Amino acid sequence: MKMIVAISFIFSLLSLSHASVADFCVADYNLPNGPAGYSCKTPSKVTENDFAYHGLAAAGNTSNIIKAAVTPAFDAQFAGLNGLGISLARLDLAAGGVIPLHTHPGASEVLVVIQGTICAGFVSSANTVYIKTLYKGDVMVFPQGLLHFQINSGGSNALAFVSFSSANPGLQILDFALFKSDFPTELITATTFIDAAVVKKLKGVLGGSG
Amino acid sequence: MKMIVAISFIFSLLSLSHASVADFCVADYNLPNGPAGYSCKTPSKVTENDFAYHGLAAAGNTSNIIKAAVTPAFDAQFAGLNGLGISLARLDLAAGGVIPLHTHPGASEVLVVIQGTICAGFVSSANTVYIKTLYKGDVMVFPQGLLHFQINSGGSNALAFVSFSSANPGLQILDFALFKSDFPTELITATTFIDAAVVKKLKGVLGGSG
Amino acid sequence: MKMIVAISFIFSLLSLSHASVADFCVADYNLPNGPAGYSCKTPSKVTENDFAYHGLAAAGNTSNIIKAAVTPAFDAQFAGLNGLGISLARLDLAAGGVIPLHTHPGASEVLVVIQGTICAGFVSSANTVYIKTLYKGDVMVFPQGLLHFQINSGGSNALAFVSFSSANPGLQILDFALFKSDFPTELITATTFIDAAVVKKLKGVLGGSG
Amino acid sequence: MKMIVAISFIFSLLSLSHASVADFCVADYNLPNGPAGYSCKTPSKVTENDFAYHGLAAAGNTSNIIKAAVTPAFDAQFAGLNGLGISLARLDLAAGGVIPLHTHPGASEVLVVIQGTICAGFVSSANTVYIKTLYKGDVMVFPQGLLHFQINSGGSNALAFVSFSSANPGLQILDFALFKSDFPTELITATTFIDAAVVKKLKGVLGGSG
Amino acid sequence: MKMIVAISFIFSLLSLSHASVADFCVADYNLPNGPAGYSCKTPSKVTENDFAYHGLAAAGNTSNIIKAAVTPAFDAQFAGLNGLGISLARLDLAAGGVIPLHTHPGASEVLVVIQGTICAGFVSSANTVYIKTLYKGDVMVFPQGLLHFQINSGGSNALAFVSFSSANPGLQILDFALFKSDFPTELITATTFIDAAVVKKLKGVLGGSG
Amino acid sequence: MKMIVAISFIFSLLSLSHASVADFCVADYNLPNGPAGYSCKTPSKVTENDFAYHGLAAAGNTSNIIKAAVTPAFDAQFAGLNGLGISLARLDLAAGGVIPLHTHPGASEVLVVIQGTICAGFVSSANTVYIKTLYKGDVMVFPQGLLHFQINSGGSNALAFVSFSSANPGLQILDFALFKSDFPTELITATTFIDAAVVKKLKGVLGGSG
Repeated sequence: MKMIVAISFIFSLLSLSHASVADFCVADYNLPNGPAGYSCKTPSKVTENDFAYHGLAAAGNTSNIIKAAVTPAFDAQFAGLNGLGISLARLDLAAGGVIPLHTHPGASEVLVVIQGTICAGFVSSANTVYIKTLYKGDVMVFPQGLLHFQINSGGSNALAFVSFSSANPGLQILDFALFKSDFPTELITATTFIDAAVVKKLKGVLGGSG
Repeated sequence: MKMIVAISFIFSLLSLSHASVADFCVADYNLPNGPAGYSCKTPSKVTENDFAYHGLAAAGNTSNIIKAAVTPAFDAQFAGLNGLGISLARLDLAAGGVIPLHTHPGASEVLVVIQGTICAGFVSSANTVYIKTLYKGDVMVFPQGLLHFQINSGGSNALAFVSFSSANPGLQILDFALFKSDFPTELITATTFIDAAVVKKLKGVLGGSG
Repeated sequence: MKMIVAISFIFSLLSLSHASVADFCVADYNLPNGPAGYSCKTPSKVTENDFAYHGLAAAGNTSNIIKAAVTPAFDAQFAGLNGLGISLARLDLAAGGVIPLHTHPGASEVLVVIQGTICAGFVSSANTVYIKTLYKGDVMVFPQGLLHFQINSGGSNALAFVSFSSANPGLQILDFALFKSDFPTELITATTFIDAAVVKKLKGVLGGSG
Repeated sequence: MKMIVAISFIFSLLSLSHASVADFCVADYNLPNGPAGYSCKTPSKVTENDFAYHGLAAAGNTSNIIKAAVTPAFDAQFAGLNGLGISLARLDLAAGGVIPLHTHPGASEVLVVIQGTICAGFVSSANTVYIKTLYKGDVMVFPQGLLHFQINSGGSNALAFVSFSSANPGLQILDFALFKSDFPTELITATTFIDAAVVKKLKGVLGGSG
Repeated sequence: MKMIVAISFIFSLLSLSHASVADFCVADYNLPNGPAGYSCKTPSKVTENDFAYHGLAAAGNTSNIIKAAVTPAFDAQFAGLNGLGISLARLDLAAGGVIPLHTHPGASEVLVVIQGTICAGFVSSANTVYIKTLYKGDVMVFPQGLLHFQINSGGSNALAFVSFSSANPGLQILDFALFKSDFPTELITATTFIDAAVVKKLKGVLGGSG
Repeated sequence: MKMIVAISFIFSLLSLSHASVADFCVADYNLPNGPAGYSCKTPSKVTENDFAYHGLAAAGNTSNIIKAAVTPAFDAQFAGLNGLGISLARLDLAAGGVIPLHTHPGASEVLVVIQGTICAGFVSSANTVYIKTLYKGDVMVFPQGLLHFQINSGGSNALAFVSFSSANPGLQILDFALFKSDFPTELITATTFIDAAVVKKLKGVLGGSG
């Protein structure tokens, strides 16, 4: 039966010598990146391991003051989703744990509760606050770029997975932007109406300067 | 203190009389839809309930031959994620359960294993097969539009959540496209090289005609 | 000369009876909107006035505590730029005026100083602060979704025009999201580490509740 | 065999009562359109005829001065490709036929010669002119928005099909924009450096006013 | 006349020393590629030959069992359309020829029949089959990512050109994905319900392993 | 207080060793560019100076025949807006100054008048001309890819800033494309109906050849 050779030949034009921009673009962190993501790893070196990620399997360490941990699987960690418009993260919240107010500048987010009870909310451009208490299996969506938070509102550990509409959603934590940076105190005061004393106190706690 | 009035006044141009195309566009299923999604619900009628979804909380019914269930939360089910470029679904697989080969024509997918062991894989345009056995907490990405599957490869129930890079990813299950449709048997045979007898048998099982 | 008729005839297929989705889509605020913007006004009713906007010609009223005014020309105000991926706004800052910390969830921004001196800055996801003092004719870019501010750092009135990479960039002013909303104080405290007393005081000033 | 019922049940959540934003969005010209295209026809009314188009089968009438005809199959003519990011057109050029200089404001174009010989070219932003003589089976690409033309450079009829990277590419024919419109002659003269006498003469031929 | 120099000078800022990201981005296959396509060839080395492609001029070899040939002009073959969101291919079908069921993961497709009679169809996510018999000059659209096929349904050679809404549409041929790959037979059987004997037979014909 | 260390530790996964595709992508002109823009500068080398641009502060030289100057701040000049979907330019028009008919192949444009009076207009695909006289503070939008112009219609200097919905909008000036290029005169004549004598005269003035 010569069908094998025949069919192979017909479509062989599809696999020319130079690397094709193909179905996927596994990140090669050693090459330049651009606005659309990282450069692609040579296809012949791509294996099944590039499409799987083990880094979310273990709980994050919540032995800290916010009693919570965020573990990302963005394109900078999980090379296989480079350029594919999606990423995810794991949220661990011990009893009393809080993911502080934050935004993702480049993506919308969906959250699914795996364990425990989570109170989550976001604020719209119209300054309306949307808050829900979510139980195991519940889902919530946070539209792109809006301030939102998650709090463990149950008495025991909570676990959630979140996904983003970008391989590189970004993460701007409000308190860190203000109080863990070198944002000059007088400018923070001028642009937030928060007293300098409060700013300085929070900078002291979080490690900011300026 | 007249600051309240003053500041309110300054920015009041931002809330003119007609409805703004704002941060989100909760689907109004009673209005026309278009290539970018459903029309938006009037903002004043939007509540926190539009951004949460309870439909993934219960396990799907796996008392069937594939011993599996897919429960979607796409824009057609979860109005709050209309236009936001993301959606999700719940996969329940009893022991021996299988999500048959399928594609999502409009989105890439990430899967996270919540319980059990899942063997998952996809085939690229280059006919390379990428298969991984995934354990609790493991993540895998399936690039847009490629054939993929998930199988419960452990001895007990498995649960996974999947997310998509579109609010409307689509779902084309290979067997249903071929054998649960009215795709004429002679055309299936001609375009797949599968014998007519095999096609007819599978149509008999799955309910196809033609 | 019958050329007129002839050529008209040849290309006449281009102007069939139903309204074409054409070069532009002037917003019709009376029809439904969707994720991509407002529905289009009937082309035959579009005039040159739909493409011009007079609302930025007058200085905003800066007789208020922040001594500043933001006047937007987004798709909700300026129908002609619906669907075109661009919009703009006018910033007026009296001496001592401040545009408080804010984000645009859906767009990057460029600012050009027309009059006066403006100190502007933004904070990145990595908590790095980028601040510049800008003089007449200087330009600055603020990447999408990041916290940024503008302050009149000269002794006299300042004027700037800003443009956005979306017809509907959104505007979330940090202080308004927190202190001019009904965001419960205990949740603000929990998610920002700002003392309840400070929160309550600012809510009192800005008009928030909860 | 109860498999049919079982599997049907499992996935039945995918076909809820309201119309899904599905794989395609056949244009319904009676509903509003928006920046992303026309509203979608009710899926249950869509048939195979919506995805086929017969309007390019017949040669355009080239009995005119430019000895050429353009027959479009854009979303305004071919409802099935609404929202799908692609469209096409048929070019008929009798001996000596010319498709005058034009642009497509919203799409790149590829041309394939079916019959005859065509000289085609475009001008870049850098004022470089790229011209090729194309024979049967040859292909040429015209990047988005750039001025380009096609001329029958053989002695007999020529036929080509062109495709566009948008369902609604637009078509601005230079001569028509200038001389078949009511563009005031003094403004044309001022903005093109072409003498008023030449402008008036061409307006006379093409039917312009002003 | 010093106008030449003067005007040149005015706009000279537009052609600064470093290479501009300009109207087009002809692929340079020797540089890294990324999610948006190949890196751009240095503009000064671009010629008119980069925008034309001769590879579709000759009929593909149909002396094989499927009596058909697909000849692509994607960005991997035709450097000039890199980044432009469009590509094309040539379909040759001898009498009895078949383009087997396949998908393009990243693009919608339009087909125009140049010669002969072609029966073409696709299956939607809702398992509806849309089939049309197409004659010379007829056009059909296949929405993104859906299974579709083309069969020569006339008695003589057929020729068609197809275009895609992406420079890199991808091509996944169902039979090749299953039976010309190393997809383990037991996984194929489990995920398609096709008997192992049938799978093995087709692997034997098409050259698959596993 | 060990909170600093604790919180730092929790989120430290977000700053892994390799460079992240982050909030912005400042152009590095020494690396390859691609369809989405220039490669990104190493984040650690980015400073506030990358986000500001001084090149629009000075008036362009209008001592030339068109009595006008266009000064761009596109991604090729202003590295900080690479990949951000926005750019801008400064228009200076002395009394009698004219920005000749031109298009931006890749972007829509908004113009705001800073000083003087400007008559601006564009022509649609339907050959309708939209013309407005704009005064200080007035805004006008020019939809993507359409021919448009700006004329100083007052008696004194005029100044405007324009913004674009792309970091790389392109600029094709009609007269330069035709008469300052090597576009063969016979092809210009054939594709514009402008007499060869007129073409040659304008080529003489503007420096074209062919």
